[in-house]
Amino acid sequence: MRFDIISVLPGLLESPFAHSILQRAQTKGLVEIVVHNLRDYSTNKHRNVDDYPYGGGSGMVMSIQPFAACIESLQAERKYDEVIFMTPDGVTLNQSTANELSLGENILILCGHYKGIDQRIRDLYVTREISIGDYVVSGGELPAAILVDSIVRLIPGVLSDETSALSDSFQDDLLDAPVYTRPADWKGLKVPEILLSGDEAKIHNWLHEKALERTTERRPDLLK
Amino acid sequence: MRFDIISVLPGLLESPFAHSILQRAQTKGLVEIVVHNLRDYSTNKHRNVDDYPYGGGSGMVMSIQPFAACIESLQAERKYDEVIFMTPDGVTLNQSTANELSLGENILILCGHYKGIDQRIRDLYVTREISIGDYVVSGGELPAAILVDSIVRLIPGVLSDETSALSDSFQDDLLDAPVYTRPADWKGLKVPEILLSGDEAKIHNWLHEKALERTTERRPDLLK
Repeated sequence: MRFDIISVLPGLLESPFAHSILQRAQTKGLVEIVVHNLRDYSTNKHRNVDDYPYGGGSGMVMSIQPFAACIESLQAERKYDEVIFMTPDGVTLNQSTANELSLGENILILCGHYKGIDQRIRDLYVTREISIGDYVVSGGELPAAILVDSIVRLIPGVLSDETSALSDSFQDDLLDAPVYTRPADWKGLKVPEILLSGDEAKIHNWLHEKALERTTERRPDLLK
Repeated sequence: MRFDIISVLPGLLESPFAHSILQRAQTKGLVEIVVHNLRDYSTNKHRNVDDYPYGGGSGMVMSIQPFAACIESLQAERKYDEVIFMTPDGVTLNQSTANELSLGENILILCGHYKGIDQRIRDLYVTREISIGDYVVSGGELPAAILVDSIVRLIPGVLSDETSALSDSFQDDLLDAPVYTRPADWKGLKVPEILLSGDEAKIHNWLHEKALERTTERRPDLLK
């Protein structure tokens, strides 16, 4: 699977894609992630990518020309399943969207900055607008990294233990049960005895019960 | 304001904190962000930070000892407003939580990995559990960066134009209106005429109307 990301701050994404699961997925050849510097596509002599908003107001707006040039040059090379714009007014990302997108081959992600991108870029090129949550961050780069991470870990072969992703929170609409490791006693705080019992069936039931309990308490909306 | 982040992958956070608004906020002396390598606090000779889960199952669980040592050494130096664990079963982050946290002085953030952290760390030290959304990513580092970004941009003096953060999506429970910049005509796609009219009152009303329209269409839940 391939991800192309268009950003005005490509350096911001260097370390997140060079560590952990995202790094290993690329080394294994399962995923290709290419970050494109939007400024390289600006025909402006100062390599500008933004301009004042029509109608006034604070903040700058990202211009059509550099995005159009970059998107069109990428689309001439391959077909994209989706052209995604990361934006707080998009559809909120959830696990089923990540699952769905993990079945694609090529995904193009646009990162906005400042007060946003010219609406006509959205009208012309974007097939899907995604928000990672109801809060504002400085640009689309970290949200793009979150989206890529949530998708990549679902690609077969990426996680060393293939059952891991399927047992994650949200895959079964349940939060995880609490987890414990050694020591069994930490300054008087003990691991629940049942987990030390070796009785697999009982443990399985207990974990399910605790997952259900935690979901009921914290996220009853997931059970509906 | 100071953020301490405990992570097993401190390098992952290098570039996000070295760019854009987060970088400038640190240069201006408004924010200090310190990332601590959890392995440095492990008393295990292999610097291990995880172990097998009690009760079996896939994945590893992060052990109490290194977190306890790191948290206690930091708490001996200063008082933290919150000790936050980034976890998909936490309370979902939203703008009002970011606003509230931006009033603090010191925030300590724990990043989990693998199948989670020993429940007793949560019971002993954590004052708040935060999820950035209903999806799973590989670790708490990117969520921690998202949280820090959402908070830092609210600190007075961080954004060059102080009105910018207040006019963001969610601050008034409305999504933003569409934005446009030059050229007024892009291959026949024109900027709405009212934005070129120079009539400030009319423009203001139009922007509010469009923000309301977009929110009604995309996120009616925000209007309740």
